[in-house]
Amino acid sequence: MDVNVLLFSDFETLDVFGPVEVLGSVKAFRLRFLSLNGGVVVSTQGVPVMTTPLCDAEPTGILLVPGGQGTRLLVQDEPFLKRLSELAAVSSFCLSVCTGSALLAKTGLLEGHNATSNKKAFDWVRSVNPLVQWIPCARWVVDGKFYTSSGVSAGIDMALGFVCDRFGRETAETIAMAMEYVWNDDKDNDFFCVEM
Amino acid sequence: MDVNVLLFSDFETLDVFGPVEVLGSVKAFRLRFLSLNGGVVVSTQGVPVMTTPLCDAEPTGILLVPGGQGTRLLVQDEPFLKRLSELAAVSSFCLSVCTGSALLAKTGLLEGHNATSNKKAFDWVRSVNPLVQWIPCARWVVDGKFYTSSGVSAGIDMALGFVCDRFGRETAETIAMAMEYVWNDDKDNDFFCVEM
Repeated sequence: MDVNVLLFSDFETLDVFGPVEVLGSVKAFRLRFLSLNGGVVVSTQGVPVMTTPLCDAEPTGILLVPGGQGTRLLVQDEPFLKRLSELAAVSSFCLSVCTGSALLAKTGLLEGHNATSNKKAFDWVRSVNPLVQWIPCARWVVDGKFYTSSGVSAGIDMALGFVCDRFGRETAETIAMAMEYVWNDDKDNDFFCVEM
Repeated sequence: MDVNVLLFSDFETLDVFGPVEVLGSVKAFRLRFLSLNGGVVVSTQGVPVMTTPLCDAEPTGILLVPGGQGTRLLVQDEPFLKRLSELAAVSSFCLSVCTGSALLAKTGLLEGHNATSNKKAFDWVRSVNPLVQWIPCARWVVDGKFYTSSGVSAGIDMALGFVCDRFGRETAETIAMAMEYVWNDDKDNDFFCVEM
């Protein structure tokens, strides 16, 4: 199964490559790096990644949507949101990290669903679509096919949680061990929560 | 100051982009992505990154050397090792993650210095150059201008430690907080150590 990693200008580096390290360790997954029109896309930290156009995505794959400063412009970018909406609607799972959940929220697909986001940007994310059931204290949230995580590094924990849900705990723990990563495995334990 | 990030075919994704997230958050640093001959370089997890040739590196910058499966071939690649050796010798600091320390060790520059590496690959790394003082239990090791970390995610902790040493603890903690990252801040506390 394909993991469609959606990149855009000014994405947050670790939002993408934390989950990519985890999901890229699963033999059943093939990772593809996509952007609306393809070409080189540069992260906020200056990483230039080669991408293929979004129309090449496997429609029923797993969609990974990162956050970052770039989301502030994209919530007003109708052509981008239209394509994201079409792809997210048919994807078997939609995973977002940090303010990536603002993009999913803007498509309307998260309305009535539980979701979370970065705590520092929480008020802005909530304002993008107040009809989402925003959870202010969670490392990550699962609601049906939607997995949404807190800020940046929380994407690693969520990706391990996603692997755990699909392939079992032993597989997730084996990947975490190979990464020498101390997995924060309780999705309800949010170290950076500020009750709102 | 430039951070020269050295990429090669089959590098481990998070070895690079964990430290890049941290170092890319420091305003004083400009990150450059380099490989021996430039062009697109692909990680083990399939990430295609655009690079410039190694000859474009700022000679006195900070060098970041990741690990990964690609290191197994590179310890026998004389042209690569010659250029790495020249650059590492003049770099103000050399940071390696995981089996990246095997590459630094092979240049001879680590001989007589303390260093560490991934615990799963420790015997191989030690065999590359037994004249290095290999530390089997450490999240990361500092010896003069050399910072070497344990496997994969330990690079994030080491990069925060490097920022702490240069700019103070508050700066490091601010970056960790923005990443919503639980910093394993004790370099001597190795969760994945197997005493040898």
